[in-house]
Amino acid sequence: MSFSLKLDSVLKELPDLEIRGSTDKSIITGISSLSNAKEGDLTFLANPKYKNEVKDTEASYVLLPMDHAESSRKQNQLYIKTQHPSRALARICRIIYAELFSAQRVGIDTTASVHDSAIIGDNVSIGPFCYVGKGARIGKNTLIESHCHIGEMASIGSDCRLYPNVKLLSLCEVGNGVHLNSGVVIGSEGYGFEQVGSVHEKIPHLGKVVIEDDVEIGANSCIDRARLEETRIGEGTKIDNLVQIGHNVKIGRGCLIVAQVGIAGSVEFEDGVVVGGQAGFAGHLKVGKGAKIAGQTGITKNVEAGAFLKGNPAIPVQLAHRISVLQRKLPDLFKRIAQDKDKK
Amino acid sequence: MSFSLKLDSVLKELPDLEIRGSTDKSIITGISSLSNAKEGDLTFLANPKYKNEVKDTEASYVLLPMDHAESSRKQNQLYIKTQHPSRALARICRIIYAELFSAQRVGIDTTASVHDSAIIGDNVSIGPFCYVGKGARIGKNTLIESHCHIGEMASIGSDCRLYPNVKLLSLCEVGNGVHLNSGVVIGSEGYGFEQVGSVHEKIPHLGKVVIEDDVEIGANSCIDRARLEETRIGEGTKIDNLVQIGHNVKIGRGCLIVAQVGIAGSVEFEDGVVVGGQAGFAGHLKVGKGAKIAGQTGITKNVEAGAFLKGNPAIPVQLAHRISVLQRKLPDLFKRIAQDKDKK
Amino acid sequence: MSFSLKLDSVLKELPDLEIRGSTDKSIITGISSLSNAKEGDLTFLANPKYKNEVKDTEASYVLLPMDHAESSRKQNQLYIKTQHPSRALARICRIIYAELFSAQRVGIDTTASVHDSAIIGDNVSIGPFCYVGKGARIGKNTLIESHCHIGEMASIGSDCRLYPNVKLLSLCEVGNGVHLNSGVVIGSEGYGFEQVGSVHEKIPHLGKVVIEDDVEIGANSCIDRARLEETRIGEGTKIDNLVQIGHNVKIGRGCLIVAQVGIAGSVEFEDGVVVGGQAGFAGHLKVGKGAKIAGQTGITKNVEAGAFLKGNPAIPVQLAHRISVLQRKLPDLFKRIAQDKDKK
Repeated sequence: MSFSLKLDSVLKELPDLEIRGSTDKSIITGISSLSNAKEGDLTFLANPKYKNEVKDTEASYVLLPMDHAESSRKQNQLYIKTQHPSRALARICRIIYAELFSAQRVGIDTTASVHDSAIIGDNVSIGPFCYVGKGARIGKNTLIESHCHIGEMASIGSDCRLYPNVKLLSLCEVGNGVHLNSGVVIGSEGYGFEQVGSVHEKIPHLGKVVIEDDVEIGANSCIDRARLEETRIGEGTKIDNLVQIGHNVKIGRGCLIVAQVGIAGSVEFEDGVVVGGQAGFAGHLKVGKGAKIAGQTGITKNVEAGAFLKGNPAIPVQLAHRISVLQRKLPDLFKRIAQDKDKK
Repeated sequence: MSFSLKLDSVLKELPDLEIRGSTDKSIITGISSLSNAKEGDLTFLANPKYKNEVKDTEASYVLLPMDHAESSRKQNQLYIKTQHPSRALARICRIIYAELFSAQRVGIDTTASVHDSAIIGDNVSIGPFCYVGKGARIGKNTLIESHCHIGEMASIGSDCRLYPNVKLLSLCEVGNGVHLNSGVVIGSEGYGFEQVGSVHEKIPHLGKVVIEDDVEIGANSCIDRARLEETRIGEGTKIDNLVQIGHNVKIGRGCLIVAQVGIAGSVEFEDGVVVGGQAGFAGHLKVGKGAKIAGQTGITKNVEAGAFLKGNPAIPVQLAHRISVLQRKLPDLFKRIAQDKDKK
Repeated sequence: MSFSLKLDSVLKELPDLEIRGSTDKSIITGISSLSNAKEGDLTFLANPKYKNEVKDTEASYVLLPMDHAESSRKQNQLYIKTQHPSRALARICRIIYAELFSAQRVGIDTTASVHDSAIIGDNVSIGPFCYVGKGARIGKNTLIESHCHIGEMASIGSDCRLYPNVKLLSLCEVGNGVHLNSGVVIGSEGYGFEQVGSVHEKIPHLGKVVIEDDVEIGANSCIDRARLEETRIGEGTKIDNLVQIGHNVKIGRGCLIVAQVGIAGSVEFEDGVVVGGQAGFAGHLKVGKGAKIAGQTGITKNVEAGAFLKGNPAIPVQLAHRISVLQRKLPDLFKRIAQDKDKK
């Protein structure tokens, strides 16, 4: 990654800094870890275990926690102290990202196919080979990269980013500030059939999907449309790659759903639920506020608010760990019991 | 979802109705649940637990089971009684769906790239940015949405629907009435390598995939082509999202395969097998007719017809439940044994 | 699959053959299993359990191990003996594949959109509706099929194949001889957020992905870009379908990663690691050289070189099997203990 960012413009976005050392440089040209950084780079100490690497880094700018005692021994090296180096770093990354992001704006690419009736906001960018259907709406500042499909009557808010090859199918609604990664499918047919004899008759799905503001959805994840009404993803929820969300599911606000999780139809999450990778949920369950589900867990019953479950069947994580330890003692236990029997 | 459907045209498709109440309305303008329905909507009682909501629904038309005793208390509200309300509803949804479906027909979009040698049936619709390769064949009434790829010598039957971004690779064959959701890949390379020293040499896959009639495949699912001959999905089988089916697999008729299931190479399913989400199958296994596999189960041996298995290693579901209960008693058991030992 | 390959041209690519029988044929027109092969086909005995089928095959050419004692009883049928029939078969398949492959070359399709600044090697093929961004580089002989996206400043080596709908996002780098199946996403946003109060603030990902030579990646798999530096897949590693690889992961050389595996951020694999389907890895772990991980295993701690683990929590596979056997005896054990207690 190479870029050129004025040091001043970065520092003014960060609150309450203490600057130590001096430099005749004024440009940041890269970001890297302590050990890989070179002249011109900004680096950071986010995890105390790398503290010893600070003194040897070649970076020109070093983000440090306030309580970092040492001073820079190098010429042309700044120590920049802040309460939260990792939070400051995230902010700097957002500045860089916004620059790269704005560079990618192309307006409406000549190869895109946009229906006359679609309503396109100011400063929208629509990439090569995109299709925007009848009656679709796209809010201001939204960036849509190549090969996206915006179906009939679908809508997208402002300040969204759709990476290449997102499929937002007809009638589905996306809020503001939403990021959809490549290959995301929103509004696929739900998995619902009516068994008539040995035949599984298709139940067409006439509902939609609603994605609220500030949601992020990872690459190749799928969200099925509701049978009749809506599947809904709550504000600020972050979904990783290759996640499956079934028809009629309701996900609350601020949930974290890690890669390859599967959530069957009509499940409801309250706010702040956190789900580890590859966990699965059977249909029609309720998961209470702030519940945590460990990776690979299989949930087949309602989950209470604040619970932390693991395993299949899912049990409290403490009990699961205790049982795991004891299972490893089973060979010994059975041996001992066999011996006791012999003695008798 | 908003539409306009003549009540008469719907009622005549449903057998053996009993109509109670009267109305001066003749148009259905929406479908919704009992509690959400509003004037003009059709609603339904499919699950007895919502029976109490029937009397308060604002819907204009209410699908009810034959044995529903009460009469409508509202003016302009019809009770429509039938043996199977959910089956009737599915049928109504199909009528609506067919209308919306027909609305999406565009013929061959001007942006599509169709090889001169391709054979295209009557009333076929090919969406924006689709590619149809040399010698491909597409049967009548089939609807292909944007960004699809129909490879060289591939074929699709009649009355199929391909959602945006389906990839049907060269030589693969799809029957009649098949639905392929967005992002489906049919005919990807199988995962097969020949180890020569420490190098895994690629085995090119020269076979194909055959999808029989009335199959449905969910978003972003993948079906690998056979090494030499064919991978086959049997008639009427329904596959959910993000499912992986390996090379040379044979799936029987009328199987149900829920989201994120993985089936390794050369596995064979007989008819009517049902597999819960995230279950996995090791290669070269046979699964007997009507077997049921619980979600997240790991199958590493052949499965007998009619079996119902769970866990990894997979065991009969009853035994699995029994063991789960006893595992939770292990802490207690080990404590008791320790006490017994102390006593001696 | 139908093709036409000169027998001589095939035989000369295979070392140390013994030919038995005679034929007036000189063309191979198909490859099939012993029982399905017909006149003109080549077949093979790779697995001794099919030995009895050799004498009845209708194939014109039969690949056999050196120690196969019987001679052909048919006219116009050749027995071709070699040390490694399956390796010879793989080689023949590669010859056929190369022929079909070369047939698909189209140069740069007229519908493709290639930025003026992109550097395209000799004999490169770019399919319909592909987008190649600013500053991208594509090496000689590489074949890119329809609907691919090659992002800004991304690079691809020589002799690669990208199947339809691969998304190689900006800055990412692919080596030589790499195969990327349909729907692969390289360079999606990593799953990283900074919690500020109850809000998960996005951490933009500014790093890249590097894919080394001779890697193969299966359909709809996703590899996230690094936060700042690189996610890396080592030379000769083979990744199956629907696999998730998180940000900053480093995979060694010659690893095998089967379908639906999930690897969380910053995990590091040494060379030759083998991972069964649907296994999952928590973040920031190290997995030693040649370790084997069974399907559906959940790894939450570092793994030593050469280990073979199974289960969640993961334990040595031998112990896991022993415990599985004993678990099935738990009902019996608890019954016995209850009886003992009654006796006292």
